[in-house]
Amino acid sequence: MDFRFSLICPLPKLDFDIITLGHGSGGILTHRLLDKLIFEALRNPILEQEHDGAYFNLPGELAFSTDSFVVHPVFFPGGNIGELAVNGTVNDLAMCGATPRYLSLGLILEEGLPIAEFWEILQAIKHACADANVQIVTGDTKVVDSGKGDKIFINTTGIGTVHPKARIGSEHICAGDQVLVSGPIAAHGMAILSVREGLAFESPILSDTQSVNHLVIRLLDAYGEKIKFLRDPTRGGVATVLNEISQKCQKGIRVQERDLPVEEAVGGACELLGLDPLYVANEGIFIAVVSPEIAESALNFIRNDPKGHGAACIGEIVDTHPGQVVIKSQIGGSRVVHMLPGEQLPRIC
Amino acid sequence: MDFRFSLICPLPKLDFDIITLGHGSGGILTHRLLDKLIFEALRNPILEQEHDGAYFNLPGELAFSTDSFVVHPVFFPGGNIGELAVNGTVNDLAMCGATPRYLSLGLILEEGLPIAEFWEILQAIKHACADANVQIVTGDTKVVDSGKGDKIFINTTGIGTVHPKARIGSEHICAGDQVLVSGPIAAHGMAILSVREGLAFESPILSDTQSVNHLVIRLLDAYGEKIKFLRDPTRGGVATVLNEISQKCQKGIRVQERDLPVEEAVGGACELLGLDPLYVANEGIFIAVVSPEIAESALNFIRNDPKGHGAACIGEIVDTHPGQVVIKSQIGGSRVVHMLPGEQLPRIC
Repeated sequence: MDFRFSLICPLPKLDFDIITLGHGSGGILTHRLLDKLIFEALRNPILEQEHDGAYFNLPGELAFSTDSFVVHPVFFPGGNIGELAVNGTVNDLAMCGATPRYLSLGLILEEGLPIAEFWEILQAIKHACADANVQIVTGDTKVVDSGKGDKIFINTTGIGTVHPKARIGSEHICAGDQVLVSGPIAAHGMAILSVREGLAFESPILSDTQSVNHLVIRLLDAYGEKIKFLRDPTRGGVATVLNEISQKCQKGIRVQERDLPVEEAVGGACELLGLDPLYVANEGIFIAVVSPEIAESALNFIRNDPKGHGAACIGEIVDTHPGQVVIKSQIGGSRVVHMLPGEQLPRIC
Repeated sequence: MDFRFSLICPLPKLDFDIITLGHGSGGILTHRLLDKLIFEALRNPILEQEHDGAYFNLPGELAFSTDSFVVHPVFFPGGNIGELAVNGTVNDLAMCGATPRYLSLGLILEEGLPIAEFWEILQAIKHACADANVQIVTGDTKVVDSGKGDKIFINTTGIGTVHPKARIGSEHICAGDQVLVSGPIAAHGMAILSVREGLAFESPILSDTQSVNHLVIRLLDAYGEKIKFLRDPTRGGVATVLNEISQKCQKGIRVQERDLPVEEAVGGACELLGLDPLYVANEGIFIAVVSPEIAESALNFIRNDPKGHGAACIGEIVDTHPGQVVIKSQIGGSRVVHMLPGEQLPRIC
């Protein structure tokens, strides 16, 4: 497991090395777990109030989003469930055009989880929060008996303040608008699949998990209402998100297959396994529907950001075939791309 | 299972009768689950925006709280995990002196969960939200493979607006302040235990799960800063909460055992099983530390509310033995009551 997060803070000295049911009792053991590990890793003044909830003021329009994470395995090439849980909710808020501010952290631990792994996950949460500039301000920890969970499930719920220039909404989308993607697709899903199936590729495939909120906010600063729609193509992949957009705005979307950015190793792995990268999950990119007059400029803007250097324009909104996504293949044929019909890779996030 | 919630809305017609992994894919099956069941049960204008998050304005000081629910079994005498999940977070916000406004709903479903049971849980969520006057405005649904969860785990995270007269904080607590409890203790834990262990008592023991936010807000309207501290004694029971309060304010608490309200059936069951009701979980009562001059009036105020008719004054804050809770038994002896040391009843909420 050479992809494991390298510890920066050493594990505190404790008199227990696995999670037990008593850590979920609400009594002394729970308090010890909180004090020695969770507060130790995540401390900030609001969290330390240690009340039943956190207090703060947030004027203006707010965005509120929740996500539970059940990814298997919890450690994967490029990250672990901890940073995934922070980045996922941070990105959902960014897709609302909001600056993420505060997160809650709901942990469901399985009895027997090694403390060393739990600490590593907490460290990843801490670093992801620092990178996205958000704080965990309230939390909850439950423990389920061995065999009734799977190491750790994490819920994060976030609150953000909506950017004053944001006008994100499918009702603003018109024919001619351009569809941008902020980076190469399908990396997260293929990273999970490769470790789950024990596949070894020449160059290892890393999850793309990252927060994109700072980039999105700068984009809104620069282009305001010309950014018409934002969505992160996680479960169900790019194909599912394009279908959602197309159905919401009742316009068609035309995609050029040759424009889809796919890293070579990821594309090769998809081909080998017979998977279409359009349906594979992503955790660190977003799709933006933008006005045609700013499309090129916005694309360059995204590409100039270290978190968007692989961005591409992949398609266009059209008046024909409303509610349908049509892809033009490299050899010239066209086909309709549907939403993911069944399940491709369960527990991808 | 005669304690099961009686359905008010009939189960919608569907072409699936159990949850499958595909319902967590993010694709067509997820959309169908959302449209046919979750939105159907919980619809409201904010939820129906169907974006990555919900938008709203909430001026003033906010409270933010999260709780995950892993109770086993999910149906128990007096309720199910659905209403427990709503009432739990609603009550946590109320304990912050806040009017709960919006909740998120994070579902982790186990493959194989019967749709009929899921619908019953959604109906309980709907009714609990209506009773507490809160809305589910955003959500997330994940599915884990059979054997990696336990039917359903629920996270609710809530936002509320803090009452302008609320001054809840352990720093306000003084010697002489009175400790009130809003109803009989230990009902929830004993209800769960009775069904888990297959115990039959003469009169069935029902969980006390209920939301207390309306009562708490009226109490703050009437008494403002004279209500010094609020906490709901869930996991760890009344003993653990009294210890938390005592340690936070570095005062002692003296409790009269004869004043502890315990329903006869609950008390009998505790005695039979050798459990101290002080450590058994509650899900529909709260502890309030109040100024002595309003204690009697506030107690009557709580008793006059249908959700507080079994309220009692159980003790007093003292300057002696700071950080310790001492109980005076019915026969006159005194003993120190500690925080719950290990785990008494795992997965109680």
